[in-house]
Amino acid sequence: MRIDIGNSMDSVSSPGLTPDMLDSLDSKVRHIHRLIAPKINNRDFGYTALNPLNPDELKNFQDFIDQFSNFSNVLTIGIGGSALGSATLSRTLGISGHIVLDNIDPSHISTTLSAIDFKDTLVNIVSLSGGTLETISNFFLVRDFMKKQNIDWESHTLVTTSSSGPLYELSKKHNLPLLPFPENIPGRFSVLSPVGLAPFAILGGSIEELIKGVRSGFNSLSGSIYDSPAYAFGAVTTELSNMGISANSVMPYSENLETFTEWFAQLWSESLGKNSLGQIPTRAMGATDQHSQLQLYRAGKRNLMVTFIDILDHQTSLSIPSIESDDFNYLSNIRIDSLLKKELQTTEASLADVGCPSVRVELEQISPFCIGELLHGCMASCILSAELQEINGFDQPAVEWGKRALKGMLTGDQGIESQATQSKNQYWIGG
Amino acid sequence: MRIDIGNSMDSVSSPGLTPDMLDSLDSKVRHIHRLIAPKINNRDFGYTALNPLNPDELKNFQDFIDQFSNFSNVLTIGIGGSALGSATLSRTLGISGHIVLDNIDPSHISTTLSAIDFKDTLVNIVSLSGGTLETISNFFLVRDFMKKQNIDWESHTLVTTSSSGPLYELSKKHNLPLLPFPENIPGRFSVLSPVGLAPFAILGGSIEELIKGVRSGFNSLSGSIYDSPAYAFGAVTTELSNMGISANSVMPYSENLETFTEWFAQLWSESLGKNSLGQIPTRAMGATDQHSQLQLYRAGKRNLMVTFIDILDHQTSLSIPSIESDDFNYLSNIRIDSLLKKELQTTEASLADVGCPSVRVELEQISPFCIGELLHGCMASCILSAELQEINGFDQPAVEWGKRALKGMLTGDQGIESQATQSKNQYWIGG
Repeated sequence: MRIDIGNSMDSVSSPGLTPDMLDSLDSKVRHIHRLIAPKINNRDFGYTALNPLNPDELKNFQDFIDQFSNFSNVLTIGIGGSALGSATLSRTLGISGHIVLDNIDPSHISTTLSAIDFKDTLVNIVSLSGGTLETISNFFLVRDFMKKQNIDWESHTLVTTSSSGPLYELSKKHNLPLLPFPENIPGRFSVLSPVGLAPFAILGGSIEELIKGVRSGFNSLSGSIYDSPAYAFGAVTTELSNMGISANSVMPYSENLETFTEWFAQLWSESLGKNSLGQIPTRAMGATDQHSQLQLYRAGKRNLMVTFIDILDHQTSLSIPSIESDDFNYLSNIRIDSLLKKELQTTEASLADVGCPSVRVELEQISPFCIGELLHGCMASCILSAELQEINGFDQPAVEWGKRALKGMLTGDQGIESQATQSKNQYWIGG
Repeated sequence: MRIDIGNSMDSVSSPGLTPDMLDSLDSKVRHIHRLIAPKINNRDFGYTALNPLNPDELKNFQDFIDQFSNFSNVLTIGIGGSALGSATLSRTLGISGHIVLDNIDPSHISTTLSAIDFKDTLVNIVSLSGGTLETISNFFLVRDFMKKQNIDWESHTLVTTSSSGPLYELSKKHNLPLLPFPENIPGRFSVLSPVGLAPFAILGGSIEELIKGVRSGFNSLSGSIYDSPAYAFGAVTTELSNMGISANSVMPYSENLETFTEWFAQLWSESLGKNSLGQIPTRAMGATDQHSQLQLYRAGKRNLMVTFIDILDHQTSLSIPSIESDDFNYLSNIRIDSLLKKELQTTEASLADVGCPSVRVELEQISPFCIGELLHGCMASCILSAELQEINGFDQPAVEWGKRALKGMLTGDQGIESQATQSKNQYWIGG
């Protein structure tokens, strides 16, 4: 993995970084890396996300997973970081059989459950606290569904939770296999831990290759932005954010990376959206959204940057056939991957032309190694950005208000949030 | 459909609208409506998108569509507005059998085509100009694929294009059925025209019900924001944008509306992202993204608003079973739709609590009528917003630069864009 920040420099973009700014960022990053490297090594809360599983842990995990090798499907029930990490791995890497239930929309639940053959399906319920309301609700619905189909639910259920709490108690009571949710990793940083890896591993993904990529990312954290693509990305996006670039559109030129952009959005939003700071992560897909978002990116307010993701080898050889029409002669026999590459190049240039900042992340291919490196790099960027802004990247205090209000409404506990919710300001138009 | 703007008023949100601002907007809207109502009635360029098909047009369209009733699948090949409209209708309304190929990612194309049974599939190629490079490329790939499978491609292809241009010529040469792309509708406004309706109609969707909803939306454009939900939405979002709310997160509490949020993002970006104006449309899904984006919305910069979409009747009765555990007793027998509603209410209140502006759009249910009304309302909002800002909502000049550069690279024509593309600023880190 490497990254090109050329189009975020002030010779191209406005706002943009000067060489002096890079030097100044480099010395800050050097200092920060000296502080956090021991925390990564010691597996301190949050920072441990950047420390790859060691061979023993990998072996233990693989041994644990082996007991589920007879299942051809995994239904993950979780929400937020308890679902997006594993969804990202399976969807990015084309692993089939992973179904994710991460919402409580009644018709969506019905449609999803009706399409599952539970005989071959392992239900993987994931909640760090063991009390996540949406997850628990869905689990009891699914369990009921299994019972009605005469499925022995206890032999079809894996629990991923911490070493205490309601789900832990449930797993003990029914003697269900338990995958410990590491208590030193916030959900959105759990993708490369057993929590995120389990469905991918159960369905035959190569964990070893993935962890090799993670290790490569780990080794690339040299402490200088001039050597480390991940730190360079974190530093450049933070500096641009300070200069008024309020949004970052992540635009991979690969359909496989669609769920990845959702994962990135959570990572960025929950980790950095605090203290009246944070950059809004938006999602786009190349080349499609050139025909949807590009007009705004090029001609709207100069408050957005684009993060292009380029795949060097698409591993699929596909060429447009010879075309008889004069109008399209120039397309004859062109390889689709080369066309896609040119789309990226021209879109990048069209933004540079008007001074809209962008960076280009380059991956060799879509493989477990490269995806491991990418995910590690994003988390390292994010942690660096939090440190540069002196915020806690590992908490999410602002979601608590709504959770308390909801629980208050459901239990009849008229706390302050519950009261505020009921005194909503209304101003209806129409209907 | 109705809309609640209570949480965008300055008694709640900051920035927020004062009653005086509403009055002032109302008189502007009254004036604008007087100007554009005749343009809608006369079917002027762009404005015609708000004029529902009349019974004769509907009958002609239905007659044309009837010839395809033996197909159980439709493969739409298009990009941007030529694909997103029809994709939105089929995905929102749960119509199965509609496959959309709107990108030129080689492995995605291979996977998509391999999964299609072309014997039962109508290929629907859509391009206003008839020369959209990605669409043409995909069509020739698909045609080749059909030929190799001994499918008589001519009897499996519908062309949707304007009355001239390369695709028009192709349709004449091979005597293919031709659905005229109305030349007075830009692609992103074509969802309620035959262009957007065709796959939905071919696959059995109720066009009549949909158009009834469109007509209801049309009739609601009274010229006062106090009566018209669509105009109120357009006016409020524009005013908030003027006050520094740079992004609008569209957050439906319904998985069915996921593609709708993409459609909305294109409509908003291409229509309003010009003259250094425009609001960045971002996408979120309730309740899921409460666990992903909410931290940022509540605690980040006060530069974002949320557009909640609430479905009153989810038409699926699903209740959490009785739960034996004391921890979750309060969830026993609760209906999932009521839980989802409370999630929306508490999230809305949690944003109001910190002064983050939001609006709530309320739909009776997910039905052709309500979706017709919603799509019409979004287009009316968008057109109003363009008028309020005195910009042309119907062009997309900023995408031309990249298109010329790409064509230059492919044909060897060293125009200015092509040259600029090749002189890219590079600053690589890593690798």
